[in-house]
Amino acid sequence: MTRLKKVSKKAGLPPGTPVHVGERVAETVKITIIDYDRDSIEEKELASIEECFPYKDRPTTKWITIYGLHEVSLIEKLGSCFDIHPLTQEDVLNTEQRPKADIFDDYIYIVLRMHSYDSGKRQLLSEQMSIIFGHKFVLTFQEREGDVFDPVRARLRANKGRIRKAESDYLAYSLVDAVVDNYFKVLEGIGGEIEDMEEQVVAKPVPATLRKIHDLKRESIYLRKSLWPLRELISALERDETPLIRKTTRIYLRDIYDHTIQVIDTVETYRDIIAGMLDVYLSSISNRMNEIMKVLTIFAALFIPLTLIAGIYGMNFNTEKSPLNMPELNWYFGYPMALGLMIIVAIVMLGYFKRKNWL
Amino acid sequence: MTRLKKVSKKAGLPPGTPVHVGERVAETVKITIIDYDRDSIEEKELASIEECFPYKDRPTTKWITIYGLHEVSLIEKLGSCFDIHPLTQEDVLNTEQRPKADIFDDYIYIVLRMHSYDSGKRQLLSEQMSIIFGHKFVLTFQEREGDVFDPVRARLRANKGRIRKAESDYLAYSLVDAVVDNYFKVLEGIGGEIEDMEEQVVAKPVPATLRKIHDLKRESIYLRKSLWPLRELISALERDETPLIRKTTRIYLRDIYDHTIQVIDTVETYRDIIAGMLDVYLSSISNRMNEIMKVLTIFAALFIPLTLIAGIYGMNFNTEKSPLNMPELNWYFGYPMALGLMIIVAIVMLGYFKRKNWL
Amino acid sequence: MTRLKKVSKKAGLPPGTPVHVGERVAETVKITIIDYDRDSIEEKELASIEECFPYKDRPTTKWITIYGLHEVSLIEKLGSCFDIHPLTQEDVLNTEQRPKADIFDDYIYIVLRMHSYDSGKRQLLSEQMSIIFGHKFVLTFQEREGDVFDPVRARLRANKGRIRKAESDYLAYSLVDAVVDNYFKVLEGIGGEIEDMEEQVVAKPVPATLRKIHDLKRESIYLRKSLWPLRELISALERDETPLIRKTTRIYLRDIYDHTIQVIDTVETYRDIIAGMLDVYLSSISNRMNEIMKVLTIFAALFIPLTLIAGIYGMNFNTEKSPLNMPELNWYFGYPMALGLMIIVAIVMLGYFKRKNWL
Amino acid sequence: MTRLKKVSKKAGLPPGTPVHVGERVAETVKITIIDYDRDSIEEKELASIEECFPYKDRPTTKWITIYGLHEVSLIEKLGSCFDIHPLTQEDVLNTEQRPKADIFDDYIYIVLRMHSYDSGKRQLLSEQMSIIFGHKFVLTFQEREGDVFDPVRARLRANKGRIRKAESDYLAYSLVDAVVDNYFKVLEGIGGEIEDMEEQVVAKPVPATLRKIHDLKRESIYLRKSLWPLRELISALERDETPLIRKTTRIYLRDIYDHTIQVIDTVETYRDIIAGMLDVYLSSISNRMNEIMKVLTIFAALFIPLTLIAGIYGMNFNTEKSPLNMPELNWYFGYPMALGLMIIVAIVMLGYFKRKNWL
Amino acid sequence: MTRLKKVSKKAGLPPGTPVHVGERVAETVKITIIDYDRDSIEEKELASIEECFPYKDRPTTKWITIYGLHEVSLIEKLGSCFDIHPLTQEDVLNTEQRPKADIFDDYIYIVLRMHSYDSGKRQLLSEQMSIIFGHKFVLTFQEREGDVFDPVRARLRANKGRIRKAESDYLAYSLVDAVVDNYFKVLEGIGGEIEDMEEQVVAKPVPATLRKIHDLKRESIYLRKSLWPLRELISALERDETPLIRKTTRIYLRDIYDHTIQVIDTVETYRDIIAGMLDVYLSSISNRMNEIMKVLTIFAALFIPLTLIAGIYGMNFNTEKSPLNMPELNWYFGYPMALGLMIIVAIVMLGYFKRKNWL
Repeated sequence: MTRLKKVSKKAGLPPGTPVHVGERVAETVKITIIDYDRDSIEEKELASIEECFPYKDRPTTKWITIYGLHEVSLIEKLGSCFDIHPLTQEDVLNTEQRPKADIFDDYIYIVLRMHSYDSGKRQLLSEQMSIIFGHKFVLTFQEREGDVFDPVRARLRANKGRIRKAESDYLAYSLVDAVVDNYFKVLEGIGGEIEDMEEQVVAKPVPATLRKIHDLKRESIYLRKSLWPLRELISALERDETPLIRKTTRIYLRDIYDHTIQVIDTVETYRDIIAGMLDVYLSSISNRMNEIMKVLTIFAALFIPLTLIAGIYGMNFNTEKSPLNMPELNWYFGYPMALGLMIIVAIVMLGYFKRKNWL
Repeated sequence: MTRLKKVSKKAGLPPGTPVHVGERVAETVKITIIDYDRDSIEEKELASIEECFPYKDRPTTKWITIYGLHEVSLIEKLGSCFDIHPLTQEDVLNTEQRPKADIFDDYIYIVLRMHSYDSGKRQLLSEQMSIIFGHKFVLTFQEREGDVFDPVRARLRANKGRIRKAESDYLAYSLVDAVVDNYFKVLEGIGGEIEDMEEQVVAKPVPATLRKIHDLKRESIYLRKSLWPLRELISALERDETPLIRKTTRIYLRDIYDHTIQVIDTVETYRDIIAGMLDVYLSSISNRMNEIMKVLTIFAALFIPLTLIAGIYGMNFNTEKSPLNMPELNWYFGYPMALGLMIIVAIVMLGYFKRKNWL
Repeated sequence: MTRLKKVSKKAGLPPGTPVHVGERVAETVKITIIDYDRDSIEEKELASIEECFPYKDRPTTKWITIYGLHEVSLIEKLGSCFDIHPLTQEDVLNTEQRPKADIFDDYIYIVLRMHSYDSGKRQLLSEQMSIIFGHKFVLTFQEREGDVFDPVRARLRANKGRIRKAESDYLAYSLVDAVVDNYFKVLEGIGGEIEDMEEQVVAKPVPATLRKIHDLKRESIYLRKSLWPLRELISALERDETPLIRKTTRIYLRDIYDHTIQVIDTVETYRDIIAGMLDVYLSSISNRMNEIMKVLTIFAALFIPLTLIAGIYGMNFNTEKSPLNMPELNWYFGYPMALGLMIIVAIVMLGYFKRKNWL
Repeated sequence: MTRLKKVSKKAGLPPGTPVHVGERVAETVKITIIDYDRDSIEEKELASIEECFPYKDRPTTKWITIYGLHEVSLIEKLGSCFDIHPLTQEDVLNTEQRPKADIFDDYIYIVLRMHSYDSGKRQLLSEQMSIIFGHKFVLTFQEREGDVFDPVRARLRANKGRIRKAESDYLAYSLVDAVVDNYFKVLEGIGGEIEDMEEQVVAKPVPATLRKIHDLKRESIYLRKSLWPLRELISALERDETPLIRKTTRIYLRDIYDHTIQVIDTVETYRDIIAGMLDVYLSSISNRMNEIMKVLTIFAALFIPLTLIAGIYGMNFNTEKSPLNMPELNWYFGYPMALGLMIIVAIVMLGYFKRKNWL
Repeated sequence: MTRLKKVSKKAGLPPGTPVHVGERVAETVKITIIDYDRDSIEEKELASIEECFPYKDRPTTKWITIYGLHEVSLIEKLGSCFDIHPLTQEDVLNTEQRPKADIFDDYIYIVLRMHSYDSGKRQLLSEQMSIIFGHKFVLTFQEREGDVFDPVRARLRANKGRIRKAESDYLAYSLVDAVVDNYFKVLEGIGGEIEDMEEQVVAKPVPATLRKIHDLKRESIYLRKSLWPLRELISALERDETPLIRKTTRIYLRDIYDHTIQVIDTVETYRDIIAGMLDVYLSSISNRMNEIMKVLTIFAALFIPLTLIAGIYGMNFNTEKSPLNMPELNWYFGYPMALGLMIIVAIVMLGYFKRKNWL
């Protein structure tokens, strides 16, 4: 919930004003560039944003990554170098966006959420990833260092597959693909936790179980919230007739589309399973109540009649004033008879409970 | 609910009859005008509506604001000055409308709801805002003084951004944008309250908690009710081919559209969270019942057998008439034996409850 | 439910056979005519249907109203006079129809439901209204006298607004508008009752409360059932290219369309509120159960230990046979000690309940 | 559920293999023919299927009905006589189909479900009806004798309405109309039972009530399952441009379409009402539990304190050893005082319950 | 859930890299070929994949089946022989896919799930089936031996129906048809279990019942998850204008489409029934609680007053000190009176419970 808090600091500013919306997580901004073509590749960390401007007009493909969004001026400089519209610059800085693709004439702006699952803390982490790509360049923006793109970098370095031969649209596709593939890992983490909860909810449901079920439910709500727009986004890229996406790349987009649908399907299945767990939890609470009630009823119904018998023979009617007054007290077998009566009543009660299936 | 009450006073009147539907909140009507172009700006409060007629034919852009809708004739005069259709005049006065955009040849009529969240009273306030804009003029109407447009006024005065250079459609856009931006503030207020409730519902759920959850639920229903039509409204403005909205402004409309979707997404997430809180509340009520039942059962099951033992040795069988009659009463260790028996039974019972996990 | 009962008497008849489906509510059929043009107006109650035939070819606009549908032959005569298709005649007589608009070449047939709310009996009443309009004529049909059209008649008589100048489509529109406006009154009635119930459900929920909530729920279901088709109906009229509806009238249809959406929105909000009331009701029942359980548990847990103490000192162990046998009975402070023990146990128990927040 | 069982016996056979799927209900197959034109009508029961072949080339319209589908060869012979595609023949024999219309060049195949409500057994019966119609012929197939077409036959015999003058499409329409009209009867039966249940659920809810509510719910699910495809079917027939359906007949199809929508609306309303009954049932179970708890609590809380008083004065403290030991036992008004104390405690308790509204 | 686990091992690989995703179930890969035309048929198990390459250019139709997907190189060889796109090869090896059809220029790739129901273990089994067909060839891939295609093979051998005369599209259709037909068997298995559960849930609901209901619910969720995409898949094949599917085959596709809808309908009905069973289960738990409470209340309310009477006459007031002190103890009929009083109270209580309908 806290995430939403800072969005409102933008309220009232003129549109297109770049303002960083989000937590300031990185101390310093880190800029890296990978510049490659079919034959060569150069990888470098840049000290300042100005260092990447000369790359702009090279015939190679450039992939510039910015970690840390709090230095607004840096984004503005990069933006004006690559002719990025002010509204897009504003969007890059606002880290609370809904996944979407904005298709401009000279570039395409993609914003999506990168999720990861911290299986130690059993917590879903999430970060916004902005990808801008146009002719011969790809820019990516995120708040924290660390991303899911290492395999893509490895493929670039090793010149494996089509990646070095293809245009920037294929690199952008590879990045989106890496993000979508990573969702499978997240789903595994959540899936594992669901399995644990399923056993727990049956074996030993405690109030904390309910909290965890609700945490899982909320996580699946958040995942869903990023996934449905992601599906629209990919579908829009696939269908749009922009020349920035080549026909050969569109087949690959279809492939991520299928993966996204599969992820969504799994999330929806998880939601159904979580809803089922809630039912099981609530009904096991009811069962427990039933069991408590049964124990109470058995004790009360078993002992109260016996107590009455003891009470009767504890009455003080004067046996001397009348032969009708409690003659049992003077019988030879009076006491054994009373105890026997108690035992018989107890046995009858137990038989009754047995027949009711309470024992 | 009370809001609906006065709508019916219109029933039966001919359509296009301007009638004020709503509470009379302002004592007097306040009229302000901001008249500006690229180079100059004039800001004034007007004593009567007639004062603003001369502005009409000036080449500058005029923004006229009316606070207070109970003086019907004033709206009629303004309406006929700017050629506003009687049905639109009627709509301006009816403060219970669904957000919508009516696109006429000479002007566009937008009605939307301005929400604010009173965090002291923890209450959602809401007011209807009507915006009419056409060539070189924008008219806005609301019932109470106080709006969310101060940043827009500040930008006008400071000549910051495109606002003074652009046409009236951009001013209208800026007003709608201010309203939408304000929704984020409202969501923060509600979000904060949801967080508070989440702790309370787990820590110490009382019947009042349920009431508050329902208040939150109802607030989210009301928000939703204004937001979905708002989305349609913006989408309609964006798609319609009216020449009153310039192409450059349409890109900005797309931007508010994205914001609206984001607000809707958040409201839907809140609804899911509120529904989850209800589940937690109800199940914590059940847990509490279980605990009460456990205490009762433990007490009853522990003491009833002991009471029976005491009852048995309180019977008055005549020990002199038969050696079988309660010989324990005359034993040397009779009383300690009876107390010991009680203690053993109690320990056995406690062990049983321990095994059942009730202690 | 009873309403449905008589529909089946039509099963098996050839289509287009006019049969009255509904209750026979009016003793005699009442026929009225209002015949008007821009300059004159004539209003008359007719003794027989044949009296209205001469009006047919006049250049004025005629509005003929039939109250009471059980005289089938009368409908047939009127139908053949105005060239109404047999299927439409059949529909007019079947008072259990879904709101719809059938657009024929020469006339348009509109059927809708007129609701009213009897606030004394707190009951939703409903009647079917058929409107047929074509060139220079409007026919309306209903079962009972009394309708919501008095304001329209007043406007006709007073020659107020466009109504006398416009064509029959505007009159038909005015009638539909009157019906839709009346829905607001109905919603107010139900809204008021919802407010009453909301207080009751919190303050003093009894089983009768549940019944009333369900009555409200059912009423909202019935309203919905008439409103969604009404929306389609108006939308169909607005979009259809029939020359029977003039362009100027279409703007007004858009207006009723907006009103209908607003009514639907309100009904949907009511449904959400009613669903919330059910939750509150059920949870206040649970709370009540909890309270009862608490009282029981407190009494049982407080008195059962005391009773055990009394029971112990009521045992009859022979104090003379052994110094170990209940020496307390012979102590000087024996009785005060026993009472004191009871009081201490009671205080400890009360403290325990206090800590559990049960007192 | 049992119905589904035999569908699987088809699994693995080549498509277009006619196999009877369903119960063998009729002992012998019955074949009837009605052969008519504007002037004459001939009605006959046929001993063998071959007898109807000569009718094929007559200029009259033929309606051939087959009761009993277990003689597969018979269907094949009829099929090849009228040029019916093997897939259609297979469909006719499979009595577990979803309502649909297959439009071929030479004929239209309609399959729908004929429901009836046995009000004695309170059970919904259902049978599949196949209608094939083409130029001058209509074939109908069903498993059992007895259908809802007697009124159609009567109209044919009496030459009432358009039926003898029109083409086979009108006859087919009349049959579908008869089936749809019959749904109203079924809804009345179910509606009546719902009314009975509504009283019962409030007056005297027993577990059997729940079962009946669930039976009603399931019946409404089954009805729905046939109705939605029926709606599509009629809509498809109305829109398709096949020359087999004349323009005049399409108006009538629109009429059945309206009826189907009305039936669907009613079923949906029933579903809402049934869901409401479930709520009422469950909450009246809760209320009953509350009442039981109240009785228990009143008894326990009333008598347990009294029992304690009796227990105290049943203690055996030696009054002779100390003036402090139970001096009440020797008081003159000791016993009346004890009884009086009990009565006062009881009155206080009753007052407390009164204030709690439990009495 | 475990199934998902291995999908993530692909994350990071370049797209189009064939990797086996799934369990390694078969020890060795089995390859079979059926090579046929109108006149001849040859059936063979192949030792290596290379053996099937010579068949490629024969004018006959070939159906090659691969059981076991862990030998990636084998799939690659076959793929390059028949010109299968790398993405398709990757899809064949990934056994966790959503059913879909990819239509390429030279072949069509269909992936669907083959379900079977193990009625012994009452478990739903599921395997992925890939079908690739193009001009004169059909390739099928699955992980385990054993499929549902034996009837198709039998038809091929017996030269029954159109199968040997038609093209490969008809063979592919026959395979999909066999899979869909098999769903009916699965539904029967689940349907049978639902029937069993329905009796059990009413007769003797235990916590294990709930688990089984949830297993059924989850199975229906999984079925649904394969069925909806299957429907889309068939619909896509039917509509697409690829020349690989002949017009005559499209009619048959329509037929499987209808079957799929019927299967979906049944699954949806099962879901409704299962939801209803949950309600019945939960309410029978409540009823049971009610019954337990009634027994407890009857025992407590019956015996507690009697115990009080016994307690009163067990008090030790000194009858000699005052004639008011418990004179009953010295009455001649004292003891019978006390017992009689107890019996009367018991009868009154029983009558009260009788009137409350608790006995």
